[in-house]
Amino acid sequence: MNFSDTIVALATPAGVGAIGVIRLSGDRAIEIVNKVFQPKDLSIQASHTIHYGRIESSGRVYDEVVASLYIAPRSYTKENVVEISCHGSPFIQESILQLFVEQGARFARPGEFTQRAFLNGAFDLAQAEAVADVIAADSAAAQNAALHQLRGGFSKELAALREELIHFASLIELELDFGEEDVEFADRQDLEDLVNQLLANIRPLVASFRTGNAVKNGVATVIVGKPNAGKSTLLNALLNEDRAIVSDIAGTTRDSLEDEWTLGGIKFRLVDTAGLRETTDVIEALGVERTQAWVKKAQVVIYMADATSETPVGFAAGVEALGQLDIPVIKLLNKVDQISSTELAAFEDAIPISAKNRSGLNDLETALLNVVGLDQVSTSGTLVTNLRHYQQLLQTQETLEGVLVALKTGLTGDLIAQDLRYALHHLGEITGQISNDDLLKNIFGKFCIGK
Amino acid sequence: MNFSDTIVALATPAGVGAIGVIRLSGDRAIEIVNKVFQPKDLSIQASHTIHYGRIESSGRVYDEVVASLYIAPRSYTKENVVEISCHGSPFIQESILQLFVEQGARFARPGEFTQRAFLNGAFDLAQAEAVADVIAADSAAAQNAALHQLRGGFSKELAALREELIHFASLIELELDFGEEDVEFADRQDLEDLVNQLLANIRPLVASFRTGNAVKNGVATVIVGKPNAGKSTLLNALLNEDRAIVSDIAGTTRDSLEDEWTLGGIKFRLVDTAGLRETTDVIEALGVERTQAWVKKAQVVIYMADATSETPVGFAAGVEALGQLDIPVIKLLNKVDQISSTELAAFEDAIPISAKNRSGLNDLETALLNVVGLDQVSTSGTLVTNLRHYQQLLQTQETLEGVLVALKTGLTGDLIAQDLRYALHHLGEITGQISNDDLLKNIFGKFCIGK
Repeated sequence: MNFSDTIVALATPAGVGAIGVIRLSGDRAIEIVNKVFQPKDLSIQASHTIHYGRIESSGRVYDEVVASLYIAPRSYTKENVVEISCHGSPFIQESILQLFVEQGARFARPGEFTQRAFLNGAFDLAQAEAVADVIAADSAAAQNAALHQLRGGFSKELAALREELIHFASLIELELDFGEEDVEFADRQDLEDLVNQLLANIRPLVASFRTGNAVKNGVATVIVGKPNAGKSTLLNALLNEDRAIVSDIAGTTRDSLEDEWTLGGIKFRLVDTAGLRETTDVIEALGVERTQAWVKKAQVVIYMADATSETPVGFAAGVEALGQLDIPVIKLLNKVDQISSTELAAFEDAIPISAKNRSGLNDLETALLNVVGLDQVSTSGTLVTNLRHYQQLLQTQETLEGVLVALKTGLTGDLIAQDLRYALHHLGEITGQISNDDLLKNIFGKFCIGK
Repeated sequence: MNFSDTIVALATPAGVGAIGVIRLSGDRAIEIVNKVFQPKDLSIQASHTIHYGRIESSGRVYDEVVASLYIAPRSYTKENVVEISCHGSPFIQESILQLFVEQGARFARPGEFTQRAFLNGAFDLAQAEAVADVIAADSAAAQNAALHQLRGGFSKELAALREELIHFASLIELELDFGEEDVEFADRQDLEDLVNQLLANIRPLVASFRTGNAVKNGVATVIVGKPNAGKSTLLNALLNEDRAIVSDIAGTTRDSLEDEWTLGGIKFRLVDTAGLRETTDVIEALGVERTQAWVKKAQVVIYMADATSETPVGFAAGVEALGQLDIPVIKLLNKVDQISSTELAAFEDAIPISAKNRSGLNDLETALLNVVGLDQVSTSGTLVTNLRHYQQLLQTQETLEGVLVALKTGLTGDLIAQDLRYALHHLGEITGQISNDDLLKNIFGKFCIGK
């Protein structure tokens, strides 16, 4: 990779707005802008200063702009950075971008500004990845998790774990150097305690991914049940709007309806489905097929029955059928205002609600938050939200669990040393102490241009 | 209008991007941001400086941001301005906007930043209107015209005209004060010369609107002719792409096709239409109806005939029919590679082309540029691009022409004085020396929010 050149890109969303920002980074960023900037000489200005002027070349005025200067290393990328704030016209932005390229800049690849920041040591890889997460965050919980990671909270925890592992590993490696002499620098009991301590730290991180993933990507929540159980009424009640068409006629919902609903700062992607039944109506049959497809993709299923027409046995059978899918099922009994408490008691551990009267919804909300593990969100602990990090942590955990077994069965130091090197490798890949071009390309290629 | 408060808006286009910019303007702009900005104290920083920090309130970190400070009167609005460059996440931007409102800012109305700049004397009304034009500019010519106006070129010309008129008017008003004594401070011949001179300046501005409007809004150019004349082939040739489906079968084009084409920095909105003929095909008949509707909205019509099947008499008749519409018609004879030069000579002043071979297109382009008056675009003169300005200038011109008549017929000073006051009023409305709330509301209401 060539980082001696100067890159340029539009940093703001494409489209018409009041202003747009064009960003340049590299040794020659200030020099390139200065060639077409009037009337000030930008090359003699201080860092972190703002200059009003115009972009002009060959007698053509491109725009009146404001130039913000960041002199290396006091910038996002640690390189010289100039941000040009111009009028929010796509035509003008294109013209100015083209002009900077003519003056010697190169169009930036996606994520290249952040990649340079990482490679120049502005932050580690986990923090760089958090930049994309911060931009994509669309709920308070996702934003908190991403900002925590961006600000290095996650990286600090990993660094502490890795330091202890390195200490551990170096003692074992030392033993290997003195292998002939059969010495033990690393006390086996101390090492076992240390590995247990490390695992005590890593396991919650691994476990937090279920919640972290829900926080970042939302929870696919599918509402299923027989026709006329009140699924669409529930969707409307939760969204607090008339999203789905509701009628007393069974089979009103044919297409699955999807909408987003935020609860406790977490986004639930609610899906209202066509009722599950054998049907001869072709369109409805297609709807039922889609329902089954949705259920397979769900992270939690709300199974809903009509208390006035369902029997406890039938209800249990419906839940049973879903149980085979190995995803959490919330059991919901609707229209309970129309049955007696004796009748209700026969439905074991179902949450009783009346979607129409909006009663019992709090209990449903609590159940949903329990499923994603809100306890972990509300505490200030680190949430693993990134699949790549989760996989590396899982590998680390499994490797360390292997070390525990090795210690107990008295395996030789060289095998233990090898496992420790694996564990160190996995932890290092998260923060980028260990990285390769393919990994970086993969990570930064997913960024938007200009970041 | 209340300008004592502080306004806030997103200044960059909505959507996901690398960064977004939130702008505040007003007395308390710095104070409001400072309440939620860490760790620096922004209230003691110099103007035109940039500060890295985080937006934080009630223990919640909203984002890591960069704050740019502009201290009054050294800002766009001449008020205190802070621009917050945050991550390009709509969720984060919404959260921060909301936070600033909680801290005492108010959501800005469309164009309110520019309106404040105008009312605080940063520029006149014509320049303020140019801001919106600069943002909307989508061709080099439109951008040049808008920037010329933004930078005050137009305003300067108007100011000079208005000054001369004021001098003129004050002499006449003086006469009225001494009315009883029957003196003439203003020599009638000198005044006539002056009005003629003013008209010599205003008439070209009025006339430039035809070109100015074309430059700003593009030229609606409709290609018409009988079926199979080669209209779609011409559209494809001009656009240099396969935009329209082309076949030898007459009546291939049913829907009118529209596309933009830039020539000499001017945008032409080309419309390829269904062939004009009596038809029994219902869908085609609808197409022909649409063609006629397009022709009525056209600024220039290209009438195209097939040289191998059309007679000079038929060609002239087709042009004649369009002539009643009082819009420029460019006469185009296609497929001339398939007829002899003797045959061609019979078609008087038609432009001969072969759309298929792309020959003769240069002559067509020259004719199109002549129609919009490119001469005026290429000279550096002011182009009137704004309908409101055009109407005011036209009123001024007509009023001054009335003054000329009055002078020649020896009308009394009080009638001349009244006309002069009208003319001054119209000129003043363009630059905003004379304005009212409704006018301003109308002008700035069309701006985007954040500008």
